[in-house]
Amino acid sequence: MAGKLYGVGLGPGDPELMTLRAHRLIAGATVVAYPALAGGESFARAIAAGAIAPGAREIVMDVPMSVERAPAQAAYDRGAAEIADALDGGDNVVCLCEGDPFFYGSFMYLFARLSGRYEVEVVPGVTSIAACAARAGRPLVARNERLTVLPGPLPEAELRARIEGAESVAIMKVGRHLAKIRGVIEGLGLTAEAVYVERASLAEEIVCPLAQAPEKAPYFSMILLTKGADPWL
Amino acid sequence: MAGKLYGVGLGPGDPELMTLRAHRLIAGATVVAYPALAGGESFARAIAAGAIAPGAREIVMDVPMSVERAPAQAAYDRGAAEIADALDGGDNVVCLCEGDPFFYGSFMYLFARLSGRYEVEVVPGVTSIAACAARAGRPLVARNERLTVLPGPLPEAELRARIEGAESVAIMKVGRHLAKIRGVIEGLGLTAEAVYVERASLAEEIVCPLAQAPEKAPYFSMILLTKGADPWL
Repeated sequence: MAGKLYGVGLGPGDPELMTLRAHRLIAGATVVAYPALAGGESFARAIAAGAIAPGAREIVMDVPMSVERAPAQAAYDRGAAEIADALDGGDNVVCLCEGDPFFYGSFMYLFARLSGRYEVEVVPGVTSIAACAARAGRPLVARNERLTVLPGPLPEAELRARIEGAESVAIMKVGRHLAKIRGVIEGLGLTAEAVYVERASLAEEIVCPLAQAPEKAPYFSMILLTKGADPWL
Repeated sequence: MAGKLYGVGLGPGDPELMTLRAHRLIAGATVVAYPALAGGESFARAIAAGAIAPGAREIVMDVPMSVERAPAQAAYDRGAAEIADALDGGDNVVCLCEGDPFFYGSFMYLFARLSGRYEVEVVPGVTSIAACAARAGRPLVARNERLTVLPGPLPEAELRARIEGAESVAIMKVGRHLAKIRGVIEGLGLTAEAVYVERASLAEEIVCPLAQAPEKAPYFSMILLTKGADPWL
């Protein structure tokens, strides 16, 4: 009988922001799988490290950093094949995923490849948005307010149009798009309301007004525009 | 010395979807506070029940169900005053909040009243959106896709305009607005792509195509339109 595949959200980085269920599944796993970027260390594994049982088998998917999609696709193809072998052998496999598996999460690539053939359970996790808002002390949405989530790589004109029509906005994956995003927000006269958050919940976290953000932002950074949230009334 | 105020996200309902940090803070709390709707039982307390220490003091905020805001405001005013008394007496207070505190969470009302006067830590939680997507097996957003979160009580014309310009959409707080929302989605030709989720992660959970949704939806229900998410490529 084939094993079961778990896609487990680990939250934003602080291991304490893992769910009880994620922790229990990881601690009991004989096989864990996770992506590692471009031969570097795996952020997902780093979050889960304290929970992984000694002796657990680890399937590492080495995902190249590239704007081309084919190399990453090939890495997930290989990873899915290795995970399928373990499932066929009767092992359960716990896939580690930063944040929430279905919110820009790496597990979606495995889910697309394996969910038709195996039993799958997705364990939701705390998103980076929730973590950034909490650390910045900025309520996201109350009552009948709308929230718009925009990836930073979107073209400048689209970012501008989407922010203009929005209430609360979270801009993800800021990274090398920081200067462009800053320009858009400045042009809309919203800089004073914008908060920059980098590596929320980790020791090296930065939370500051956008005007004071560093010149270089990592991939795991976010800008919050929560002009809509007024929870007092 | 005044105590510290914690706003703790409990996740969507399954106590196992609480974070390790939420569980630890609740278990160690001498004072917990939570809202209860209209004299009924408190959903927040029900999620956290297994973690609350015997003998902990419980501050209950009885929040009336009303479209008028003043009665709920008055309930949070009274709750904030009682919490402030406990903090002034040197106790830490752990406020329980369904889902994530800053994502349509009740804790925002206390944060607005108390964050200027006391040390506050917000502990993010798993949102209902992440839980609904996980249970429905529907990835929300991948790569450079956008996510729009809309509350169901929005007027019909606004819902239509916002869904039309969006990629992935989550419609929250469906409740008594189900018929209106259904009409909008049907009018846009999107019914076949829409999933209805009620009480995600709880024993009485319902997940089904929107076309098969019950006639009456509770407040804790959601419709997901994830037409944008194509994680394969």
